Order: sequence, then structure tokens, then C-alpha cells
Amino acid sequence: MGFLSEKPPFPCNRPVFCCILANTLLSTVPGVSGAGPSPEKTLLTPILDAELIATGAITSYPIKPNTPTGCPTPATITRAMMTLCNIPPLFINAGLRHTPTVPCYDVYGCAGEDPRFRDALPQVKDLYHRGEAIGTLLSQYSDLLVIGECVPGGTTTALCVLRALGYSASVSSSFADNPVSIKEDICSAALLRISSDGIKDPLDIVRYTGDPMMPVALGMIKSYTGNLILAGGTQMLAVAALSRALNFRMPYVVTTCYVRNDSTANVQHLAEQIRVRISYVDPEFGNIGHPGLARYCIGEVKEGFGAGGAMCLAHLLGHSPEEIRNLILSTVNAYS
Amino acid sequence: MGFLSEKPPFPCNRPVFCCILANTLLSTVPGVSGAGPSPEKTLLTPILDAELIATGAITSYPIKPNTPTGCPTPATITRAMMTLCNIPPLFINAGLRHTPTVPCYDVYGCAGEDPRFRDALPQVKDLYHRGEAIGTLLSQYSDLLVIGECVPGGTTTALCVLRALGYSASVSSSFADNPVSIKEDICSAALLRISSDGIKDPLDIVRYTGDPMMPVALGMIKSYTGNLILAGGTQMLAVAALSRALNFRMPYVVTTCYVRNDSTANVQHLAEQIRVRISYVDPEFGNIGHPGLARYCIGEVKEGFGAGGAMCLAHLLGHSPEEIRNLILSTVNAYS
Repeated sequence: MGFLSEKPPFPCNRPVFCCILANTLLSTVPGVSGAGPSPEKTLLTPILDAELIATGAITSYPIKPNTPTGCPTPATITRAMMTLCNIPPLFINAGLRHTPTVPCYDVYGCAGEDPRFRDALPQVKDLYHRGEAIGTLLSQYSDLLVIGECVPGGTTTALCVLRALGYSASVSSSFADNPVSIKEDICSAALLRISSDGIKDPLDIVRYTGDPMMPVALGMIKSYTGNLILAGGTQMLAVAALSRALNFRMPYVVTTCYVRNDSTANVQHLAEQIRVRISYVDPEFGNIGHPGLARYCIGEVKEGFGAGGAMCLAHLLGHSPEEIRNLILSTVNAYS
Repeated sequence: MGFLSEKPPFPCNRPVFCCILANTLLSTVPGVSGAGPSPEKTLLTPILDAELIATGAITSYPIKPNTPTGCPTPATITRAMMTLCNIPPLFINAGLRHTPTVPCYDVYGCAGEDPRFRDALPQVKDLYHRGEAIGTLLSQYSDLLVIGECVPGGTTTALCVLRALGYSASVSSSFADNPVSIKEDICSAALLRISSDGIKDPLDIVRYTGDPMMPVALGMIKSYTGNLILAGGTQMLAVAALSRALNFRMPYVVTTCYVRNDSTANVQHLAEQIRVRISYVDPEFGNIGHPGLARYCIGEVKEGFGAGGAMCLAHLLGHSPEEIRNLILSTVNAYS
């Protein structure tokens, strides 16, 4: 395939790129998330990533939001693309444990609770309605909205939601070695609560076992009037599946080829089940000349902070794969 | 004069209306602020006003952000204008004591401290830089930015800043009977700290005795690339005076005729000293048919939440004074 497996079929005159930041306490369960140097510090990753993208450096904490093996955070890719396109990204705080260090559009949510033991999002309706308000606001400003996400632990909440909706889903991971059995155990416990309470309504499923990104994204999808791209892998497929269950207009999904190639997940088959259009970006990191980026090809990190959608947006705005790859490499080299 | 004393000299193709919400602990000093049913509850007024504008009703607290005499909050005027123009306003949280009930673009500041005893804004530089980030973002979306404010107690911080900058200022009040002596006492104490420490730099003056709205507005003025209207009275003149002191491009100020007519303030003369262009809106509330709005003419409330700028924006977008007055009346009647 070329740089894009399929070109999204809409114009791109006044794009907005946003990224929804959220925490789920599941990311602090040892082994669930590779998005940070330790389980507890995964809670900081959305904040550090946003700071890196907004300012070009992380100065507020003496840590980097890289994987334990030092693989660069996908936020460096998104940073490079925002610089290339001269687009300042909009960060949306859907519910974080700590206070961000850069301005965010804030819906005043909380970190999602552990769905094994209690409702993950008691305030799901408020988050949904506040997401609607953001979608209405952004409709005024733009004709294309790209929504990324940064939710450590979010593939596990995605798994729970997809299974609760009845899909035979497997989800991806930022670990090269996907911790499938930990995720399956969490999912079983969450699904038991859902089935024993007879929960069927999509937003109720999110309340039981989702993360704060989901209802905010759903509200935005509901109210936004332009074209929509969900930039992410299995987490955004969970949002697409919820859109389908709610009879919303279906968004378009863009992610990286590294998510599609994850043999522990079934992204292509899942997209077909959901009946959502999906395109894959292949930035050919294997030969880009950076060992950390090359590890994306063997299954580490793969995607995050809307990196796939950001590369796609840069391409839609007329930048060549060569320009895109060169700026990613120089950005990662300057940062790591 | 007609509806507008002067028509702002720029086009209005893609306008954004935003309002910066902030607290200063000065509003809790008894007698300083009329923007709320009690001194302590003035801290909630920006949140309640934003909720009213965003949703059309206040349901989160059993109080209304009216004056102690029941005069309607100017947010009802802004609500009516946003409805008329079909423009969703952007709320910016520059530093509030309590958590908002509607989404806000948040710079993660704190309420301003009492400038008699300590620095009002230790983090003034951060707030300024985060305001710059917002201005950059909004430049992408729009060609005209109207900035309103809701800062109970803000005329007192404005007085302190204007005097510290060397202007012979008197400032307006939301009280019909301006509590001049309380404000003067606070101002004297703040100026004593400033002069004894030899403070001259404009942002240092804001650090000593400003409120969180000011540095955020200044950052936005610095980075925004389109045309700018500051929607407010003496508080926005303080921001204009700081812009002048910092050698920034000068914004345009729009306020109501009720602020200009305040004989305890010297708005027209102050604008001349600052060399900032100012236009006044006269919505003729005296004969509109509502006793609370008519009290604006005898000097109560006068302005707030960018109401003057919102009426001006509606007029620039082609709505007649008659339409504007009718919708304000029906909105206030439905609410009060």
C-alpha cells in the first residue's frame, strides 16, 4: 500500500485537530498499560504528552512519557505534524487525575474508576452533554474535525465496551507483548457486573466500564456538523461501535498500519463488524533511521495521541510522505 | 446618539465571542462587589452566569447571580445576543475558586489573592503564556475576537492597576452607589506595597495587584492575529492600559452607555488618556418595559459578561436595535 490505504473522501478547508485526554484507574494496575515509565506514572502521560506537543519540551516533571523500553511517545509524531501544518491542536480534558500544565478545554470530569469494583463513570450523562457543547462550538470554527485520544489503559476499557456491545473483539496494546490475560480478567469482572445488572443501553455500558474520553467523543460526534475523523486504533473503534449502537452518523477512522498489523487484535475484522470506514497510514518507520521508531514495526507503541490521524491530516493538506517522515525523524531526534 | 456611538471599523466574517471568567478574593470583602447575592457568593457568579448563557437556566445552585436588589445579571443580555446570532460563546477559566458547571477553556489558574496583603497572582507569567496559546488557537478559527469578562470585584483590581500605571483613574461599579471609599482604601494599601518594592514592569504590577483575567487577556491580545474587541468598561480599560504599557497593538473597546454615564468613574477621559478607541452601546433600557433593566439607567449593574460587546456584535451581524431589544426583554422575562 502507499502512505494511506484509502484517502478520506472529504475536503479539508478549515480543519481542527483535537485530542481528548483522560485517565482510567485501570492504567495503574501493574501490567495493563505501557504508556509511561511505571503504572502510577501512566496517569501523567496525557499531561506530559500535551505539554510536549504544545511547547516542544517537557519541563514540568523530570520524566518523559516514553515506554519502559524508551520507545518515543507517539506525541512526538503529533507534535511534528502540528508544526508541519501550522495547526495548534486543541486539548480536551475529559477527566484527569492531575492538573494539566497547558491550557485545555475542560469538561470538569474525573478519572474513570476501576470497572471491576464500581461504576467507571457515574457522571457519564454530564460528560456526554458537555461533549455536545464542544462539538457545537467547534462546528462554528471548522469543517473537518480530527479527534485523537490519550488514555493510558484505554485499550482495556475499549475491550470491555466492545464485548459488552456484543462484538467478538480483541484489542491492541502499546506493549509489544500484549498483556491479553490481564485484560481478559478485568473484562470478565466488568462484564459480570454488566450482565448481572441487565445493562443494555450504550451510555449505561460506558457508565459501567468506559473511560471519560468515550462520552465526550460521543457528544462531539452527535453535535458536530462537519466531517469527522476519529484518530486512533481499537479505542476509537469502541467509540465508533457506540456511535453505531446509538444510531449516530458514523465517523471515519484513521490509524496506523502498526495497529492493523497487531496479530493479537483484530482491527480490520472489527471495523467490518461495526461497519465503519477505516484508513491506515504507513509511515515506514522500519527504515526511517531511528531505533525507537523502528520498534513501532515490531509492535511497540503503534499509535497514540492521534498520531495516525495527524499524519493523515498533514498528507490531506498537501505534505508529501517524504516531508512527513523527515520532520518526524528530526523531531524525535531533537527530543530523545 | 444611535444604538452605537461609533461603529467598529472592521469586517465581521468569522467572529468568536469569548468571556474570561475569574475570581479575585477582593469580591468577598463586604461592600466591594454587587455581583451576587452576598459577598461570599460573588465567587460563584462567573460560574452561574456561564451556566445561564450555555444552557438557558441555572440548575446547579439554588441561587441567581443577580444583584442584592434583584436587578438581572448582564449574562441574560449576553445569552439573548448569542441566541440571536447563533454563536456559541467560548468560556475561558482564568482562575476560579469553584469548579464550573459547563465546559471552559481552562488555563489552570487560581483565584487572585487580596493585593493588600500578598501578591495577587504569583503565576502571572504562566497565565500570560497560556493566554498566548489561546490567542494562537483562536487565530486559526476566526477573524474577529470579542473578549468579555466576568470578574466580581474586578473594578477594584482595575483601579489598582490603572493607578499603579500612573493614570488618574476612577472606576465604575455594579452598585448604583459606588463604594468608592472601600475601593480607595484597598487601592492605597496595594499601591503602598508596589511603591515600596519599586515595581514598574506592567506584568509585575498585575502580579502585585491584578486579577487572573488580565494576564490571560494580555496573552490573547499579544498572539491573536485578527481584529480584537475588548467588551467591558473600566476593567477592559485596565487591560487596554496594560497593552499600551507593553507596547502591544491596541484593541478596540466596546461597553454600554451606562458605564460612560457613571459620574463616579471617568471612562471617556480614561480612554483618551490611554489612547484607545471606545464605542458605547445604548440599548435604551429605560423604556424597554422591565423594571430591573430600567435600573441599569440609574446606574445599577451597567455592564458585565461582555454584554455591551455582545449587543455590538449582534448589530454588526445585521440585527436591528429593535430585534436586539425585543430578544433581551423576552429573555429577561423568561428568566426572572
